[in-house]
Amino acid sequence: MRIVALAGGIGGARFLRGLRQAAPEADITVIGNTGDDISLFGLRVCPDLDTVMYTLGGGINEEQGWGRADERFTIREELAAYEVGPSWFTLGDRDFGTHIVRSQMLDAGYPLSAVTEALCARWKPGVRLLPMSDDRVETHVVIEDAEGRRAVHFQEWWVRLHAQVPARSIVAVGAEDAKPAPGVLEALEAADVVILPPSNPVVSVGTILAVPGIRPAVAAKTVVGVSPIIGGAPVRGMADACLTAIGVETSAGAVAAHYGPDLLDGWLVDTADSDLDGDLDGIAVRSRPLLMTDVDAAAAIARAALDLAAELGS
Amino acid sequence: MRIVALAGGIGGARFLRGLRQAAPEADITVIGNTGDDISLFGLRVCPDLDTVMYTLGGGINEEQGWGRADERFTIREELAAYEVGPSWFTLGDRDFGTHIVRSQMLDAGYPLSAVTEALCARWKPGVRLLPMSDDRVETHVVIEDAEGRRAVHFQEWWVRLHAQVPARSIVAVGAEDAKPAPGVLEALEAADVVILPPSNPVVSVGTILAVPGIRPAVAAKTVVGVSPIIGGAPVRGMADACLTAIGVETSAGAVAAHYGPDLLDGWLVDTADSDLDGDLDGIAVRSRPLLMTDVDAAAAIARAALDLAAELGS
Repeated sequence: MRIVALAGGIGGARFLRGLRQAAPEADITVIGNTGDDISLFGLRVCPDLDTVMYTLGGGINEEQGWGRADERFTIREELAAYEVGPSWFTLGDRDFGTHIVRSQMLDAGYPLSAVTEALCARWKPGVRLLPMSDDRVETHVVIEDAEGRRAVHFQEWWVRLHAQVPARSIVAVGAEDAKPAPGVLEALEAADVVILPPSNPVVSVGTILAVPGIRPAVAAKTVVGVSPIIGGAPVRGMADACLTAIGVETSAGAVAAHYGPDLLDGWLVDTADSDLDGDLDGIAVRSRPLLMTDVDAAAAIARAALDLAAELGS
Repeated sequence: MRIVALAGGIGGARFLRGLRQAAPEADITVIGNTGDDISLFGLRVCPDLDTVMYTLGGGINEEQGWGRADERFTIREELAAYEVGPSWFTLGDRDFGTHIVRSQMLDAGYPLSAVTEALCARWKPGVRLLPMSDDRVETHVVIEDAEGRRAVHFQEWWVRLHAQVPARSIVAVGAEDAKPAPGVLEALEAADVVILPPSNPVVSVGTILAVPGIRPAVAAKTVVGVSPIIGGAPVRGMADACLTAIGVETSAGAVAAHYGPDLLDGWLVDTADSDLDGDLDGIAVRSRPLLMTDVDAAAAIARAALDLAAELGS
């Protein structure tokens, strides 16, 4: 079976670890969000790709869900001693190693997809990890506070401001001119099923779908999504702040409707949202526990998503 | 008093620490060799400037004479795990911090002299540290071994090959088109005395003097040098391999003659070479103990150099 999943960071990565366990024989391609990517200290940082790579490769910091296990912060100390910022984005020494290798390859002219493949040669994530695009797409957030109205990089809003300042709008800068990375459309074309893990529907899955060509290629397939919203709140992260910015209610049903029946065939919601069970304007909704408390729990959710896809695709 | 010193790495840095102690009221400008600079992992590394900066700024690894105290090697582990080389040039995590800051500033368009000044704002070396040039000059060494005749970067010859493969020639690539960095000629012009520390006469001091304009500006001053050769051998490092490559005997007298009486007014040699005491074709030679066993010993040598300069300049 050929599975394609679109993934953001922590939630997506944990789901994918379950998916890999649920479908050990499947050929899994992950299309990763790169809208969160940021240049820091002259180095290119790809938080979502790295979270997927580290999580599936056994290098993740399990407690925090991002960054490396057994991490150290020597370089951070040095940058602070040089008074070089920003200090609000934490990068550990091991993580710096990845960004140094990536940046060196990018500077040498390799596209991000080739760099990601090279990094994965070490991590062996057990899936094929593709960036959504080799072109630079950066999510910016328009905010308005005491400093006035301005656009900031998504990471500044998310990490520095903790998404506490309301977003007036969220723009994937460069998305409309971006091309899907090599292999993305081919993988979608060949897919038996496309899965939307419980990633942020706006700044993760939404950004991937904003790359011209990807949304119709996804929509042409049997698509099952897993709700990142349980009982009116995001499981983790601040997806509610993103949904509010685009005028979508923070509820499992509203997110399904936002994706729309043209895209989504099936939608898994938590038992807390079992009132949605059934048909939601053409989307088949099933409820089950969605908390990914461990890999087995994530695998059970992934299996339910694949079962629903099989039911809908037949 | 205004003092200018031309410096390489370890020997120069240790001497400068003594010079600063010997002449606490003096205005000291150090012109640092950049011919050893190398780009590694996409980052610009300036070993000699950093050795001077760390040594005078209290951050040096005292035992090895280069690199940072309390150093860690996490990134080195990561690069090895990614199978990214070269592995023969050791960079610690703290050192990486410096190279990351430097590279980011260089990429942003700042010249190396401005970057060095910014880095020194942290280290406060107590001297004004200038790179010899903002232009790229890289020392290459022509060698011939089983792999054939080829030019390698100085660091590859020095660090990877331990200067064991004879150098056919040593070329400061780019030197002839380089301009002295801002402040270099002005500092020399204003100097009361110019000191040549016991740095490598070929690949450190020699490279600095190869930048057009520097040698005549030095020669116009009272110049006193400290021999890096004691009793026919370098105090440390492999200066003998460099001297052999340019056809100069490894002796205190031959190095003085290589600099020449047009450049050098005074020359301090070790007591082991006291047979040179007196006048050497127009260069005033004095012998005294030259082993820099600690900062006080280095200060005593520096004081002797300044005394000789005062004697010769009056």
